[in-house]
Amino acid sequence: MYMTQGLHRSAQQRPNDVAVHFQGKALTFAQLSDRVARLAGALRGLGVKDGERVAMLSINSARYLEYDMAVPWAGGVLNPVNIRWSSAEILYALNDSASLILIVDDTFKALGTKLANEAGTVRHLIYAGDGETPAGMLSYEQLIEAAEPIEDAWRHGDDLAGIFYTGGTTGFPKGVMLSHNNLGISAMAQLMTGRCGADAAFLHAMPMFHLANFAAVCALFISGGTHVVIPAFTPLATLEAISRDRVTQITLAPTMLQMLLDWLKQHPGEAARLDMSSLKLIGYGASPISQTLLRQAQQTFPETDFAQGYGMTELAPLATVLGPEYHTEEAFASGKMRAAGKPHLCVEVKIVDEFDREVPRGTVGEIAVRGGNVMLGYWNQPEATAQAVRGGWMHTGDGGYMDEEGLIYVVDRIKDMIVSGGENIYSAEVENAIASQPAVGQCAVIGVPSEKWGETVHAVIVLKQGAIATAEEIQAHCRKRIAGYKCPRSVEFREALPLSSVGKILKNDLRKPYWEKQGRGVA
Amino acid sequence: MYMTQGLHRSAQQRPNDVAVHFQGKALTFAQLSDRVARLAGALRGLGVKDGERVAMLSINSARYLEYDMAVPWAGGVLNPVNIRWSSAEILYALNDSASLILIVDDTFKALGTKLANEAGTVRHLIYAGDGETPAGMLSYEQLIEAAEPIEDAWRHGDDLAGIFYTGGTTGFPKGVMLSHNNLGISAMAQLMTGRCGADAAFLHAMPMFHLANFAAVCALFISGGTHVVIPAFTPLATLEAISRDRVTQITLAPTMLQMLLDWLKQHPGEAARLDMSSLKLIGYGASPISQTLLRQAQQTFPETDFAQGYGMTELAPLATVLGPEYHTEEAFASGKMRAAGKPHLCVEVKIVDEFDREVPRGTVGEIAVRGGNVMLGYWNQPEATAQAVRGGWMHTGDGGYMDEEGLIYVVDRIKDMIVSGGENIYSAEVENAIASQPAVGQCAVIGVPSEKWGETVHAVIVLKQGAIATAEEIQAHCRKRIAGYKCPRSVEFREALPLSSVGKILKNDLRKPYWEKQGRGVA
Repeated sequence: MYMTQGLHRSAQQRPNDVAVHFQGKALTFAQLSDRVARLAGALRGLGVKDGERVAMLSINSARYLEYDMAVPWAGGVLNPVNIRWSSAEILYALNDSASLILIVDDTFKALGTKLANEAGTVRHLIYAGDGETPAGMLSYEQLIEAAEPIEDAWRHGDDLAGIFYTGGTTGFPKGVMLSHNNLGISAMAQLMTGRCGADAAFLHAMPMFHLANFAAVCALFISGGTHVVIPAFTPLATLEAISRDRVTQITLAPTMLQMLLDWLKQHPGEAARLDMSSLKLIGYGASPISQTLLRQAQQTFPETDFAQGYGMTELAPLATVLGPEYHTEEAFASGKMRAAGKPHLCVEVKIVDEFDREVPRGTVGEIAVRGGNVMLGYWNQPEATAQAVRGGWMHTGDGGYMDEEGLIYVVDRIKDMIVSGGENIYSAEVENAIASQPAVGQCAVIGVPSEKWGETVHAVIVLKQGAIATAEEIQAHCRKRIAGYKCPRSVEFREALPLSSVGKILKNDLRKPYWEKQGRGVA
Repeated sequence: MYMTQGLHRSAQQRPNDVAVHFQGKALTFAQLSDRVARLAGALRGLGVKDGERVAMLSINSARYLEYDMAVPWAGGVLNPVNIRWSSAEILYALNDSASLILIVDDTFKALGTKLANEAGTVRHLIYAGDGETPAGMLSYEQLIEAAEPIEDAWRHGDDLAGIFYTGGTTGFPKGVMLSHNNLGISAMAQLMTGRCGADAAFLHAMPMFHLANFAAVCALFISGGTHVVIPAFTPLATLEAISRDRVTQITLAPTMLQMLLDWLKQHPGEAARLDMSSLKLIGYGASPISQTLLRQAQQTFPETDFAQGYGMTELAPLATVLGPEYHTEEAFASGKMRAAGKPHLCVEVKIVDEFDREVPRGTVGEIAVRGGNVMLGYWNQPEATAQAVRGGWMHTGDGGYMDEEGLIYVVDRIKDMIVSGGENIYSAEVENAIASQPAVGQCAVIGVPSEKWGETVHAVIVLKQGAIATAEEIQAHCRKRIAGYKCPRSVEFREALPLSSVGKILKNDLRKPYWEKQGRGVA
């Protein structure tokens, strides 16, 4: 496999079909392929050798797709930078990956200059915007114009295709190394389900640096389907693109889906003028979804199929898929709609205990995944790689179980699971119970040391502005919803929770003071 | 990718679904997986180490499927022996591959003993038949019974999965090395077209040693579709299996398709009692098909789709597919139904001249193929590998062209093409013209040396029994059908043509006397 293969095939077989819709303009496969071959030539001219890293920091655009193809075409390695990160995090990723080139758009041109000055390895800063090229930068369009199209470097198979940095809630980001085969095999498995095919028009509404979106990019290039690109997600831009470009498929994070539904509710007039009839599938994932939201979405889009993907960057990215057949009345009633799904095609999933032994159905353990989609490893971190990938199995760090039907349910991060009096307690379950209390804004549940029980359940709560609740009220609320041993023994109210740059709650920061005391024998 | 992955997945996800129908018996995925894991244990016990070759010489059976899975499960390498070969050819393949174990069925038990005695490396002979185990052989069923199921050896990716010997019309067979990725990627590409899916019941009517059939085996194991196995192709066995086991898909060589149609015509009563309504797709390939036969097949199965696959063992095996959309009245009328198809998904195809430069559309050159399906190489033949695979492109040795629409047409083997007075002449085209003369039974067209033209067209003809025709009549017949310069300048009548063991005409043998003379300057 090689990432550029599908583009070659489409340029040969359907040169005049539309490859990309972006801001009212269309680019055919022939045009795209020509621009990509020239951009690859320019990159090569700037010193990109086989395996050299090229970073991009940009909101969504047609140029982002060109970058996705031109870097491997030139023999380079992608480093699509998380646009939500702090400049310190981005700098870390640029330095860690030793990226030679940084490409920025109009949104990030100022930051780009700062980063290029500070990053040790960045030799060239390319401006891929629509205005005047700022001083000290190379013009993306001029580079393409001046360059000759080159032959594809044909990096392939287990060759490194990209380094995708994952945030994570502990320490600095890790660079996940994915090969051409990792990305290709994962994309093919997608295509085997009939999604992202040649007749698809897929809307890139998620940020294009995100692997959940990049997976669709890869699949569409293989099949020859059409890319529809919007600069960034807004409910209106999304709905208008669906209506205008006859979008058939979209992938959204649950929060985006919520925003979409809220907007539609608030703008019934606008909603009526938009034509959603082309939309066949809404994929969702990247974080847990509430059944309420999912049901609401199904009611809003009654003719559209829904599918959930569960995975992680290290899996390029899918582990399981909950297909449309589990988005029925029956699946809702039986609770199967809460599952993360069944092992994706070409992916093996098992649930293991701490000694890597498979546990019986229904028993919670760590979700482990094996297949051609499992990453090459973490960039420059052989120990972390060896810890995560053992015997070919990627250990996800997610706790979950498999039911008799083979459906997999994610219950918690393994390290967030609490063992109290010999019982496993999943912080996520307790958090759901607490969150349903009307006064609760945000909450996090952790295990704190207990001489008697090993750990006990502790809740940290941020109340909604102006709302009032006591610890006893929270506990009483929980007792009506979950078993007594799962209810928080102690409750703490705070003004805010410690959050990572992508909004994940930093539970380690919450746990630290309790367990440090424990470490000092203070219990 | 690894060949056994789908079996693991199906055993976990749908243990009680039928994996195999064979001779009125059904085997579930759980049963099959258990037998495979035990057989793998037995093979390991007999000394199969990672990469060790295990041969099988057998007509079709459920055990053949177990062999296909158990050998990679044990870490071994498949060597499925061509059952149509002479014992000398089989012996060559066993010795060349240094196979440690030979598995034979009832049909080949006598030959097996002879081969095991003569082959230098075969240490164990396993009898996978239904009778008494012959002296000197191990019982397949006893091995399974006695063995413990073992963990999968998890050979994967670029690891060697099988050596598939190709006949070829020159010299001894070559062992084509295919990796787990080669076979997996090719199978996934099949599955992306919607064929061989989880709801398919595929009939293994072609011999199971043949890669055209093995490709379906791989695809079905990935998707979890059902295998329907008949011991060997006969029209009745095939039609009965389709009717009984609700077969949805079948792949046939053109000669098999012809036999099927002939039989149906001759047995109208039987035909009426057989229910063909489940049959959704007839795939065909492995040799050229006549439009007459194809049309006849379409009329006989009006509700069934047709698809042609063109490829070779070295491509695991597909290069192009002519899908159902090119099996229409329009495609017949326009001549597009004669094409070999479009590049398969995840496969790049180009037409090149002798310097590997791409030629313009419509120009004949050599068909070259690049992709994850291209073999690792020829076993123990690095020179032959380097000659065939250059820059990642498998040079098929087939002459062909691509039309404006991107369809690929195969015209001839490159080495069978004749250049006469600067004009390219395709022996296949001339042979078709000659074959339509009623007196002609078989024919072969070769180029013979000519001082004036470089080469001239020479026809070697076997007349039908009792039929009479003169050289002049043949030439006159051709002149009505093809351009003058393509017509045979000389015609030779013979009793028989030299054939390989698989019935291919040995054109080299026909050419040899003419060109040897040339070599001696006798012209």
